[in-house]
Amino acid sequence: MIGIEDVRAAAARLEGIAHRTPAVTSRTLDELAGAERVFLKAENLQRVGAFKFRGAYNAISLLPEAAGAQGVATVSSGNHAQAVALASQLLGTRATILMPHDAPAAKRAATEGYGAEVIGFDRYSVARDELLAELVAERGLTPIHPYDNEDVMAGQGTAALELLEQSGGLDVLLVPVGGGGLLAGCSTAAEGVRVVGVEPEAGDDFVRSLAAGERVRIPVPRTIADGQQIDIPGERTFPVVRERAAAVVTVTDEEIVAAMRWAFERVKLVLEPSGACALAALLAGRVDVAEQRVGVVLSGGNVSAERFAQLCG
Amino acid sequence: MIGIEDVRAAAARLEGIAHRTPAVTSRTLDELAGAERVFLKAENLQRVGAFKFRGAYNAISLLPEAAGAQGVATVSSGNHAQAVALASQLLGTRATILMPHDAPAAKRAATEGYGAEVIGFDRYSVARDELLAELVAERGLTPIHPYDNEDVMAGQGTAALELLEQSGGLDVLLVPVGGGGLLAGCSTAAEGVRVVGVEPEAGDDFVRSLAAGERVRIPVPRTIADGQQIDIPGERTFPVVRERAAAVVTVTDEEIVAAMRWAFERVKLVLEPSGACALAALLAGRVDVAEQRVGVVLSGGNVSAERFAQLCG
Repeated sequence: MIGIEDVRAAAARLEGIAHRTPAVTSRTLDELAGAERVFLKAENLQRVGAFKFRGAYNAISLLPEAAGAQGVATVSSGNHAQAVALASQLLGTRATILMPHDAPAAKRAATEGYGAEVIGFDRYSVARDELLAELVAERGLTPIHPYDNEDVMAGQGTAALELLEQSGGLDVLLVPVGGGGLLAGCSTAAEGVRVVGVEPEAGDDFVRSLAAGERVRIPVPRTIADGQQIDIPGERTFPVVRERAAAVVTVTDEEIVAAMRWAFERVKLVLEPSGACALAALLAGRVDVAEQRVGVVLSGGNVSAERFAQLCG
Repeated sequence: MIGIEDVRAAAARLEGIAHRTPAVTSRTLDELAGAERVFLKAENLQRVGAFKFRGAYNAISLLPEAAGAQGVATVSSGNHAQAVALASQLLGTRATILMPHDAPAAKRAATEGYGAEVIGFDRYSVARDELLAELVAERGLTPIHPYDNEDVMAGQGTAALELLEQSGGLDVLLVPVGGGGLLAGCSTAAEGVRVVGVEPEAGDDFVRSLAAGERVRIPVPRTIADGQQIDIPGERTFPVVRERAAAVVTVTDEEIVAAMRWAFERVKLVLEPSGACALAALLAGRVDVAEQRVGVVLSGGNVSAERFAQLCG
């Protein structure tokens, strides 16, 4: 299991490469939440617009030279695709990304813009894991899993490490959870802090799995939080979360929209639905933060103006 | 006429009180603009969501004790109202704000939330300057003009001073211009830098006035950039701008909307129309920045999600 020293080593690798994103504060938010002070870790301002760059860069930088020379691959239509593409470009590795044919054109263009090769597939007729396995075997590539990879988890944890430094210490840290990479990394990094994961109500696989004491699979969740449409906790992330996170709570899509609107109007930050999930839990009073120093990871901001207008207009 | 030492003194007064807003960079933007490097000064992340806090705080902090004890007043339905209200609250002064009856309820509530007294008036039947003069005379208040005040100008200039430090030096600085307070302050602060003002095409009173060599009044401009609906340059700002700014250029409302959308999608920042004006000039190629180090002041982000959706959705 990864330890805090892995997160610290990842931080050293990311120094000067990942953005040290700001810790945004708002007296209005402190009062709304009833907290001593709230620190919003603005990972929407991270490179590629999401925390995913941290983990992807850390993992790819740790590949043996021969593997790096062969190239990496992943399946993603989201932020991890762009993260792997940019990290590969910076590290001189070739990235191949499997992306569903119906992924937004802007995401495909952005990924190709970082020099990655994008291969489309039909998400309804093909099993993505098998497709990736075939590609990897055929071309000798190294797969970079979006969360179930210890180097990825350690990289994501650097967001918490930075926020601890920027805030001068926290009592509670709220973190969005999809596959669990960010939560595993942050709960490892934030020793002695009550770390709480937040997932959409419809995608409560971590809540159910923690209650059951083992990984539980749910139907693929219907939620606006597309970064969290995952049906089962990661094999490697789950034990870390179970041991180190204090709890996982849920929020509704309506609460997520309210948090997106609040961030837009009050702190002038663009958040995608998954990126607003932890803030939604704070605003909805899902976690007791009375008189506490609270960190909240705003994990990403990749939403088009058009989609934002549909959701929040 | 104010000098750089006034801006430096203002910066010392604002230290630890105004936010030192981030200088955001984007390699995509550097390429789009053809610049060596672009630094976006994110004053939308300033207290009250706009640079206006700098000038209001500096001016109110410089009032003689007796004037401060009596209180201050201004006419504004915009960012200056909230800036005067918050600065007064922090400095222990009472603020009275004249605001049109049809100002957005959220702006009135925010201003009152900072402890100011808001007095409504009918913007179609009353001359606002006379109304303010009456109020000030009756109650013994000190008026804080939104731009035509040297202490306000010096305060606004601190945004440029900070950006010069954060960027390590600039060749060009693009600054939105309404009444000219921000441009006067920034062109004073940024000695040796080519400082260019940007105003909406419909509100080109500075362009015309500079061409005429004297202040020219235009019809009140129809533009989405509500922070720049000013019909004549300030009496005190105009000479400073004429002497120190290199030029003033214009952008269309469509170019402003495109810049708002770009900032939203690419750097995850919320900008109000006036706040996007200088960025619009850069994106539209209005200023030659080839191979240069460019600063752009993103002056404010006070736009509702609903209004953003109307404009950009």
